[in-house]
Amino acid sequence: MKAFSQNITLGIVGGGQLGRMLIEPCLNFGVSTRVLDPDPEAPCSQPAGSFHVGSLQDYDTVLEFGRQCDLVTIEIENINVQALYQLEQEGIPVYPQASAIEIIQDKRVQKQFYLDNDIPTADFVLVENREDARQHTSFLPAFNKMGKGGYDGGGVQKIENLEDLDKVYDTPGLLEKFVVFEREISIIAARSVSGEISVFPVVECIFHEERNLVDYLLAPADLSAYVREQAEEIAVKLMKKMGLVGILAVECFVTKEGDVLVNEIAPRPHNSGHQSREANITSQYEQLLRAILDLPLGSTATLSPSAMLNLLGEDGHTGPAKIEGLEDVLAMRGASVTLYGKKNTRPFRKMGHITMLASDRDELNSMVREARNKIRIIT
Amino acid sequence: MKAFSQNITLGIVGGGQLGRMLIEPCLNFGVSTRVLDPDPEAPCSQPAGSFHVGSLQDYDTVLEFGRQCDLVTIEIENINVQALYQLEQEGIPVYPQASAIEIIQDKRVQKQFYLDNDIPTADFVLVENREDARQHTSFLPAFNKMGKGGYDGGGVQKIENLEDLDKVYDTPGLLEKFVVFEREISIIAARSVSGEISVFPVVECIFHEERNLVDYLLAPADLSAYVREQAEEIAVKLMKKMGLVGILAVECFVTKEGDVLVNEIAPRPHNSGHQSREANITSQYEQLLRAILDLPLGSTATLSPSAMLNLLGEDGHTGPAKIEGLEDVLAMRGASVTLYGKKNTRPFRKMGHITMLASDRDELNSMVREARNKIRIIT
Repeated sequence: MKAFSQNITLGIVGGGQLGRMLIEPCLNFGVSTRVLDPDPEAPCSQPAGSFHVGSLQDYDTVLEFGRQCDLVTIEIENINVQALYQLEQEGIPVYPQASAIEIIQDKRVQKQFYLDNDIPTADFVLVENREDARQHTSFLPAFNKMGKGGYDGGGVQKIENLEDLDKVYDTPGLLEKFVVFEREISIIAARSVSGEISVFPVVECIFHEERNLVDYLLAPADLSAYVREQAEEIAVKLMKKMGLVGILAVECFVTKEGDVLVNEIAPRPHNSGHQSREANITSQYEQLLRAILDLPLGSTATLSPSAMLNLLGEDGHTGPAKIEGLEDVLAMRGASVTLYGKKNTRPFRKMGHITMLASDRDELNSMVREARNKIRIIT
Repeated sequence: MKAFSQNITLGIVGGGQLGRMLIEPCLNFGVSTRVLDPDPEAPCSQPAGSFHVGSLQDYDTVLEFGRQCDLVTIEIENINVQALYQLEQEGIPVYPQASAIEIIQDKRVQKQFYLDNDIPTADFVLVENREDARQHTSFLPAFNKMGKGGYDGGGVQKIENLEDLDKVYDTPGLLEKFVVFEREISIIAARSVSGEISVFPVVECIFHEERNLVDYLLAPADLSAYVREQAEEIAVKLMKKMGLVGILAVECFVTKEGDVLVNEIAPRPHNSGHQSREANITSQYEQLLRAILDLPLGSTATLSPSAMLNLLGEDGHTGPAKIEGLEDVLAMRGASVTLYGKKNTRPFRKMGHITMLASDRDELNSMVREARNKIRIIT
């Protein structure tokens, strides 16, 4: 029988809210945390076992940071992957592996990976620069996506006509055909060092068009078995083909015909899994920790249907944050609020989220509307 | 509309596992934590916003600690209450209030309080010393309880006969008549600054006779409405009569006739509420935080029936702890493990706990048996 020691130090590259919520199960498992982030006031700065200020893109910084850990994970993809390769060389496990992160860092490589592995995704064409993009007028309407450097809805342009094409990023990227979809869904899968795989129930993402961010989500999604099974198969196939250890969030479009197409993936805890902390037996954060520590994966069963609403900084407010209406939201039965400990707000900054538990979908939708009207992050 | 600022610093006197689990909702609410404990490696030492090593019994230490906080709470009763009175004088709120802690610190005062307020409890007689105790032979069989200083099952002696009476503590205490009871239950109530009151579902405590500690518990308890309502009424009455702000755990006996008698109370998060983190919409820890921040109390509704098993250090093992069989427990569907981050174990030390979720009581009972056989805290 193996004995579990409490002397493991997990390095987390990135100190945002995802890292902050990952620290919770680390505490429960007696795992020490060491966190790297450029911002001395990052969300992880308080709860981390030790917190280190430094650039995530700097080879030496990431390498030196990782060398002090028994195991390294990430909570953001935009980091120096060469340093992670070097850590792996030196025998320090990095999960997700550097190779998986590298695929995901470049949307061009990512899309090619889908194609090579029969993962359904929107049609696309790689473009080298603006001039190249201009050749593909027949491909419109489309999204132009930067290969590297676009995160959190950035690096994506809607290209509807020739004029738009004149404004595309002049860097290597890709044009992706508009997909007419009915719904957006997300599924999170986990795979442990030993290869055990588990998927969370599919969630439905309701997007805020203007801000190009998830506005709220409903879990579990109300789907036919046909759609759900496609999503599960895709997530599992991606995990296996990438050989990924950890968790993978897969955002998908569902077409009118019920076909599921992969939109984006993230090899880390994801915005669409926040509600798992309250609504599922095992949270995405604990599942990630179980996977990378090679512990048995936990049950992903749903305890209650839930909705999750991101709390974004109010437009026009920049500076020390105040939460207006927190009391009113907390007075709603089944609502719980998670703030990320960010002292300063700015327009549309992710400052926290609300998880709502209720027995049916209509009630959840109306709770979201109610909560949205009650709370504002202002200065 | 009030705006909630994230610039609150909560002081927690005591840095054990209860404080550690209280830090979780503090993070969710953006509340900074400052923790005092004599042990530099106490469970709170890692996650606390700032951690201070010092005696909880020393007036100046507690006073100076509290003066740096906006608000002070406790996670252990055995602390310098005079310093808390002084903090209140200086305008720093202390919840639970110093007056409530003082009642609870002395079992003699506590029992007298029950009597004065018509709270049902076992018959007792106050004794000043051993000589005094010897006069009460007609009161046997009884428990002899030290007035001050007994915590966690300590300071309690079973007195069955005259010989036992010769060995009683030679300090002020009380003799409490043996109660023939069928079950032990516990209920946790919360009361906010504004006076809102809420109770958690009653839980049933299964005691380990030999160790005089809760072995495991089942939530919610399977009780008649008659018994449940008595427990709820008692908890609410205690909160009101003490004017207590925060949470109060009330451990009770249930007699064969279905009468509920108060055994002990604790004005802080309690061992019998651990499972609320997984099994209820709001945990006892978040409820405490809501109460003392004067936020609306959360729903205490049960998401799933649960069992909670304390993980105690194995007898005969003292030193750096290893968790044997953790993997086997984590492989059980619905089991989650919380370790307290204590590097060293000793016989019967509380090192962590397991929460198990399942739909029925029989399944929970068999999960407890299974888990107990699988896991050991050894060196």
